[in-house]
Amino acid sequence: MSILPLPSVLIFGFGAFGRLVAEALAPHLPITVCDPAVAPDSTGYPVVGPEAAGDFDIVLLAVPVPALRLCLEQIAPHLRAGQVVVDVCSVKEGPASLMAALLPADVQILGTHPMFGPQSAAAGLAGARIVLCPLRGQQWRRIAAFMRHVLQMRIVIATPEEHDRHAALTQGLTHLLARAMGDLQPHPMIRTRSFDLIMEGLSMVRHDAPEVYEAVTGGNRHLVPLRVQLAQFLAGGA
Amino acid sequence: MSILPLPSVLIFGFGAFGRLVAEALAPHLPITVCDPAVAPDSTGYPVVGPEAAGDFDIVLLAVPVPALRLCLEQIAPHLRAGQVVVDVCSVKEGPASLMAALLPADVQILGTHPMFGPQSAAAGLAGARIVLCPLRGQQWRRIAAFMRHVLQMRIVIATPEEHDRHAALTQGLTHLLARAMGDLQPHPMIRTRSFDLIMEGLSMVRHDAPEVYEAVTGGNRHLVPLRVQLAQFLAGGA
Repeated sequence: MSILPLPSVLIFGFGAFGRLVAEALAPHLPITVCDPAVAPDSTGYPVVGPEAAGDFDIVLLAVPVPALRLCLEQIAPHLRAGQVVVDVCSVKEGPASLMAALLPADVQILGTHPMFGPQSAAAGLAGARIVLCPLRGQQWRRIAAFMRHVLQMRIVIATPEEHDRHAALTQGLTHLLARAMGDLQPHPMIRTRSFDLIMEGLSMVRHDAPEVYEAVTGGNRHLVPLRVQLAQFLAGGA
Repeated sequence: MSILPLPSVLIFGFGAFGRLVAEALAPHLPITVCDPAVAPDSTGYPVVGPEAAGDFDIVLLAVPVPALRLCLEQIAPHLRAGQVVVDVCSVKEGPASLMAALLPADVQILGTHPMFGPQSAAAGLAGARIVLCPLRGQQWRRIAAFMRHVLQMRIVIATPEEHDRHAALTQGLTHLLARAMGDLQPHPMIRTRSFDLIMEGLSMVRHDAPEVYEAVTGGNRHLVPLRVQLAQFLAGGA
């Protein structure tokens, strides 16, 4: 049994993903929520304002890419040395730069990309994948050990550049094709199993929020050469 | 019990698909094979040369698109009025024109696209889909009834133009993407379920024979606007 005090967690942003994280962590760690958009007594957790951000060991920013800057600006003045700030954005290079620029130098930073969502992790986080990009400080090791051993998650360590380079293919291109091909109307019978599998894959991301699409396509520089290469192949005849 | 004589079938081309058809039909109809490339006593069926093509009620051309012209030229001089010539090419407009041009005017013609192959129909043809393009004559109705009621196949009737327009999307684009994306090396962990489904779909056609790829991409005029549209989307930024 550990005699260390349990780290306290502030979840900033109580949308679908913030709720998922709160539910997964609540059996293990004390959870507090910060979200100006929700009624304080509707979350089931203590609720504080951004000015209380300095009171927690870990500040988890459960907000999408477009909301990150404002969120960082709101909490930055209140943070204290040694705290760990964690983001969950679907791309990593941009958010990593933003966090490095806007957070105090003595605050630790861990970038993450949870490769799951409220649907796929409905039954729990065991087996779910997450990419960790350690950006500043060493506390991430303790967080990774907790994810691996307590939550039984599958951890991938990568730099933001590595993450975005691979995600350009496995995530960015998927979203692009889903948008490009989503409206095509295939014949109900003149079709193949291969085509059906592709459409099933595309349908999984086709209705993702516009800010997710924008982040994983517009916010990933590594997607540019991939889309150029594919466009040339398609335009090129053979 | 029918008192009509069973129609005799000549299968021209004894590759993987010809074998599949022979095996499926042999319990019901007398089968003969014509294929200069196979040893006569290796097929398990009577073997004849192209000059005997006039001796059968149905001549089924189990050859890919690039071999169709030579095949038609070989049998055309030997055909007689009322016979039915059937092709199985993966595109329909080109082969339909070729058959109309090279076959005698009193020979009936049925274009088909079996939407299955030796793998997917290994357990039998029941439930397998086939597109029929009736091109000349009325005997196709008897063949369709046989496919539906005896072989328990699922029949789709279409014009060659309808078939190729739909197949451009469900077949041509699939092959194009398989070739364009097949060599990409995704990260073993930084990937999504959606991406995995797409790659599974692409892998089903990625190793198809080069002549199949050539036929369903280069041989389908309806694929041109689709690939232009997708290329523009990919190149276009948004």
